[in-house]
Amino acid sequence: MQVKDIVARLSLEQKAALCSGKDFWFTVDIPELGVRSMLLSDGPHGLRKMKDGTEVDAEEMTVPAVCFPSGVALASSWDRALLHGLGRVLGEEARAEGIDVLLGPAINIKRSPLCGRNFEYYSEDPYLAGELAAAYIRGVQEQGVGTSVKHYVANNQEHRRMSVDAVIDERTLREIYLAAFERAVKGGRPWTVMAAYNRVNGAYCTESAFLLTRLLREEWGFDGFVVSDWGAVDEIVEALKAGMDLEMPSSFGVGPGNLVKAVREGRLSEEVLDRAVERILGVLARAGEAHSGTYDKEVHHRLARETARECMVLLKNEEGILPLEGVRRVALVGAFARHPRFQGGGSSHINAFKVESLYEELPKVLKGAEISYAPGYVLGEEGKVDERLIQEACEAAKAAEVAVVCVGLPEEWESEGYDREHLELPESHNRLVEAVAAVQPRTVVVLHNGAPVRMPWLGRVKAVLEAYLGGQAVGGAVADILAGVVSPSGKLAETFPQRLEDTPCYLWFPGERDRVEYREGIFVGYRYYDTVGKEVLFPFGFGLSYTEFAYTGMKVSAGEVSADDGLVVEVSVKNVGKRAGKEVVQLYVRDVESSVVRPEKELKGFEKVFLEPGEEKTVRFTLDRRAFAYYAPEVQDWVVEEGEFEILVGASSRDIRLSERVTVRSNDRVPFEVGRNTLLGDLLAHPATKSIGEEVVGGLTRPGGPMEGIMKRSPNMAQAIIRYLPLRDLVNFSGGAFTEEMLADIIERCSESLSS
Amino acid sequence: MQVKDIVARLSLEQKAALCSGKDFWFTVDIPELGVRSMLLSDGPHGLRKMKDGTEVDAEEMTVPAVCFPSGVALASSWDRALLHGLGRVLGEEARAEGIDVLLGPAINIKRSPLCGRNFEYYSEDPYLAGELAAAYIRGVQEQGVGTSVKHYVANNQEHRRMSVDAVIDERTLREIYLAAFERAVKGGRPWTVMAAYNRVNGAYCTESAFLLTRLLREEWGFDGFVVSDWGAVDEIVEALKAGMDLEMPSSFGVGPGNLVKAVREGRLSEEVLDRAVERILGVLARAGEAHSGTYDKEVHHRLARETARECMVLLKNEEGILPLEGVRRVALVGAFARHPRFQGGGSSHINAFKVESLYEELPKVLKGAEISYAPGYVLGEEGKVDERLIQEACEAAKAAEVAVVCVGLPEEWESEGYDREHLELPESHNRLVEAVAAVQPRTVVVLHNGAPVRMPWLGRVKAVLEAYLGGQAVGGAVADILAGVVSPSGKLAETFPQRLEDTPCYLWFPGERDRVEYREGIFVGYRYYDTVGKEVLFPFGFGLSYTEFAYTGMKVSAGEVSADDGLVVEVSVKNVGKRAGKEVVQLYVRDVESSVVRPEKELKGFEKVFLEPGEEKTVRFTLDRRAFAYYAPEVQDWVVEEGEFEILVGASSRDIRLSERVTVRSNDRVPFEVGRNTLLGDLLAHPATKSIGEEVVGGLTRPGGPMEGIMKRSPNMAQAIIRYLPLRDLVNFSGGAFTEEMLADIIERCSESLSS
Repeated sequence: MQVKDIVARLSLEQKAALCSGKDFWFTVDIPELGVRSMLLSDGPHGLRKMKDGTEVDAEEMTVPAVCFPSGVALASSWDRALLHGLGRVLGEEARAEGIDVLLGPAINIKRSPLCGRNFEYYSEDPYLAGELAAAYIRGVQEQGVGTSVKHYVANNQEHRRMSVDAVIDERTLREIYLAAFERAVKGGRPWTVMAAYNRVNGAYCTESAFLLTRLLREEWGFDGFVVSDWGAVDEIVEALKAGMDLEMPSSFGVGPGNLVKAVREGRLSEEVLDRAVERILGVLARAGEAHSGTYDKEVHHRLARETARECMVLLKNEEGILPLEGVRRVALVGAFARHPRFQGGGSSHINAFKVESLYEELPKVLKGAEISYAPGYVLGEEGKVDERLIQEACEAAKAAEVAVVCVGLPEEWESEGYDREHLELPESHNRLVEAVAAVQPRTVVVLHNGAPVRMPWLGRVKAVLEAYLGGQAVGGAVADILAGVVSPSGKLAETFPQRLEDTPCYLWFPGERDRVEYREGIFVGYRYYDTVGKEVLFPFGFGLSYTEFAYTGMKVSAGEVSADDGLVVEVSVKNVGKRAGKEVVQLYVRDVESSVVRPEKELKGFEKVFLEPGEEKTVRFTLDRRAFAYYAPEVQDWVVEEGEFEILVGASSRDIRLSERVTVRSNDRVPFEVGRNTLLGDLLAHPATKSIGEEVVGGLTRPGGPMEGIMKRSPNMAQAIIRYLPLRDLVNFSGGAFTEEMLADIIERCSESLSS
Repeated sequence: MQVKDIVARLSLEQKAALCSGKDFWFTVDIPELGVRSMLLSDGPHGLRKMKDGTEVDAEEMTVPAVCFPSGVALASSWDRALLHGLGRVLGEEARAEGIDVLLGPAINIKRSPLCGRNFEYYSEDPYLAGELAAAYIRGVQEQGVGTSVKHYVANNQEHRRMSVDAVIDERTLREIYLAAFERAVKGGRPWTVMAAYNRVNGAYCTESAFLLTRLLREEWGFDGFVVSDWGAVDEIVEALKAGMDLEMPSSFGVGPGNLVKAVREGRLSEEVLDRAVERILGVLARAGEAHSGTYDKEVHHRLARETARECMVLLKNEEGILPLEGVRRVALVGAFARHPRFQGGGSSHINAFKVESLYEELPKVLKGAEISYAPGYVLGEEGKVDERLIQEACEAAKAAEVAVVCVGLPEEWESEGYDREHLELPESHNRLVEAVAAVQPRTVVVLHNGAPVRMPWLGRVKAVLEAYLGGQAVGGAVADILAGVVSPSGKLAETFPQRLEDTPCYLWFPGERDRVEYREGIFVGYRYYDTVGKEVLFPFGFGLSYTEFAYTGMKVSAGEVSADDGLVVEVSVKNVGKRAGKEVVQLYVRDVESSVVRPEKELKGFEKVFLEPGEEKTVRFTLDRRAFAYYAPEVQDWVVEEGEFEILVGASSRDIRLSERVTVRSNDRVPFEVGRNTLLGDLLAHPATKSIGEEVVGGLTRPGGPMEGIMKRSPNMAQAIIRYLPLRDLVNFSGGAFTEEMLADIIERCSESLSS
């Protein structure tokens, strides 16, 4: 039966019931019309499906699954194909578990490194987050399983997330926070979108017609249903009017009851209800028959290991200490080596069916090496420094040729639900690294954490591998990297600042009471650090390899292009080292001169290429008009300001290897009207009014004119007076030489010239 | 005749005429009713009276006068008595010149070091600016001459000053930008206030009833007239309605004509016009008969020298190189030594009757020393590096025991009308200092500038004396300091940042088109640098002396006080060096914990004390409730949040010598209402609803309750869920254990408890 036909046969009560959960994870079914329940399930990087018949709050309540690397790690791959492949794998698993919609990807922008859920999110950059999300979505949905891009939008903190109002100017919203979702929706066409808990500029995301209808559907063409984050509905009637469709979880009859009442009382048009039901049933139709199947967990575990290897970021590698080739004695230090931290807390937390540790896996890939182990600290007691364990670790380190120290953030420090309060590692971890590095100059640190940390010991260790929260196979993947089975190829999808106080939103995070103002505006992440020239610990886009790459032969399709035609950029990348490896080639655009404040540079393209030693490939980027545009609220549109742009290609945001200047032509104009308060300088600056402005200036500065003297005495000040003079002041500033009638005539002539 | 009687006899046309200038500087006279013209004249630090019968734009148009140190220098004295005395002197001069109202002081807050008019303004701190302005105003007005505090308000840039809209949140406006004016108006009771060119939050300052009536008159008790900045009137009818009284300069009949028309057409109540005229005539009545008199310019010149000595800030003095005692050969380098830069450009620019140079004055105070001179650069050609002159300067420096290099900013770089674009000195000046320092290790730099500059050579010179724009006697005053006639005692009234990019408003100054958003909010100057822990070149409040001071014996009147009672703080300061000197003792307050973001510390008291060697004095501060308060827009009032405060006493914002903690009791509360979207954590935090909140939590976490399991598994996340849970979600988050009826009951009980 067609969706429209089903809706026509549903009673008001049935329709209202369909707009709210049946329980915590299922939608309502209406068997007599062939409407089955859909199962929505957590799991951006692995399934978190409730066991059948389990209470929401029971122990071991989710089915064993494969835990892939978390969002922060996945994004560090900068690899669309990898995300697409992972999506396919997760989609396969979801089918096997009977899941209809996988609740992910989670792509909120990393406004502050403190956000408790950053480990799930992708990046501080909306282009990178949006591109990777679109690939992931396509992968999952190719398996006939839906996704739910979340949390739409500006759920960039856990602090008071269910009540806080994120106050964000429209340009910032468009260029940063919405941009990731826009790209994911247009490029991935997700079946569903999840409306966030928080408010944006006063309206709950679940009640914002601007977000849910005007942008999502009318501008971006979204055609699925909008589901609330779990418990995010304030008033369900307002939510449906705004464009939300499904309340989750069950409100035990409250939500549906309110809908029925509102329709009966004429406060809600039944068409709005029909629309929501149609969207929900439309997705059900796409899902088709209830899913079932099987998958091979061990095969997927190997995929998890291969995926994790692509995500790790080598932050430091002095004297080529890595890979550990030819090393005979290795001291593995830190309890994380044996019990890796591989995922974050909250709704993405998975019941991993098995976990691989570095302790188990390193011997397998570093054959013949003697590997000792010392825990160094007690898991679950990270606040306490255990001098005896540190001493033991130092002795193990001294006795070895290389010490590999595994440290990071404890699970309770990084979770959905609350934010971090600082960037520090536990004291026990920092002390361990310091102590080991003091006795073993060849010390390598492996980090397990979901967001940036400070590294006070950085100058005293030889290498740092950022393994992030790498999923259940992280131990094997780290072993593969350390042993040189593959070269590391991840790049940071976020900036590591030197200090918390350096972060752009430091003064404005997490806000006051229920209000958080995004005063830093568009200056998030590297957009801020690069624009104010601030030193960082590690820049956005940074990551080392075991090999080296040379960039040459940058070509642009034209030195002058129209914004609508776009630009093609090519560059050759060659592996000039001795090992195979992958490079992430990054393209940034800089507006050389702008009438509005713009970031120093913005990411507008990236490609990951695999190169054998000596191999060279040409990487090609196509830049569309958006690559040059900023969002202008006064015209409610993206505007390309005509002029010069710099195209920057490099290996990180602060390692630009090649650049070219191009001139971009554009017909975009911001409106200009002339009135009494228009500045004389603005007349001079606009082609249509320039000659009239020059005539006025001539009247002021002519020999014997009112400004002749000051032009001679203080030419700079005279120029400034002219530039900043409102036309209304021509009368008194000219000592009466200009009259009100002349002023009216000037304004009229300008208006005529502008409209012709 | 009483003012009211005069108004009653005036025709509509006469009243309207009185509300606009007669010409550029005089008000309209009506001889038949005994109403004379008042003369308003520029001159915060010296008179700029037009010569009689002179065209506005003629050369040498102002009468010769005494140029005192500019605002930036005066504020660096941190000396209320000095400002008061200067006010009396200027008042005396004004009387002699027949001036009725002196247009000053200019006390806009230094939001950015780039503002072209910073040299006229006092400080980045509103307490300091307001206190000094009040003293100055009282001084001038004690002579029967009025003042005009300007530019009210937020005229913090010259860029598009006549059209730009300063968008400032109310808390920032109150705590920073208005606060200086509030203190000056309440403490100084100026006869007039000058409304600024710019707009604030959409309204022209000349048309803002909020600024001109609600705040200025109703809250602060101002009873004089408001004059427009010259040319600041947009629509005179709207301006009078808002509370502006006098349009300047003459609008050649346009303004009065519009007023008459508006009254005739019923768009303006004649009472509003009467009110403005009464205020203007009221000030005229205070001024009394037309002023006349004489003053001794030479005596005032000596006062200018004594004043300048109190204002200079010794920024560096290694190895006690200063004072230059016992030095036999000094090389004076830099054309400013012979032709000092002593004032800024624009409306404060004075026709100084004589100018004293260091070249002339140093020999008089450094008797017996051989003093050579080399210009080093060409005045007026600062952009060009003259290698020959530098070479010559180096030879002079080499031949001497000490080199004194005079550099700074050229006059055309700092002026009313336009802003600077960077913090650099001219290349020719920097190169000169570098070259001289390279050949003469004993190099002293004397700076002539009106705002912070970068000092790339700082590490290579032994001493730096910031002479600012020290007025016509600056040469003699610098000589006095260098020779040790007096110890320097100035302290910076502004922070010197390391880089322009470090300044808090860097990204938001000077705004886009006609809109400048003050996104840094209250974090201006040291409030920003100290809160984010940023290194600066020289901190706010910093300045060295030739002697040293010890701080001891800090006492607070009580460890726990009520906000309304206030607090008395005493501290002993002793001169433990070998020379007489003055110390500026500074008191800052820090709110230890606050529900809103507050600066690390704020200046709430200062005293300048003179101490002979070995002498000790007790300095006493009285802190009122404002010293602890922040402005809370939601209650439209200043709020003291009960709790601990730290009282910090020191020699600069970054040199705190003594501190005490006090507990401040307060009854101030921000409103708290309970509804469906109130967070459970907020119930727990409020004394009136705490027990109800605890009962709810008990229901969730009890054995067998909906959150029992998660409390065990993830206690941090469980706590976070409870803290951030909107009451509305009790129903679905409890799996239906809470009903809508129970929820309504909880809300009702909370409301009752709060209102009882």
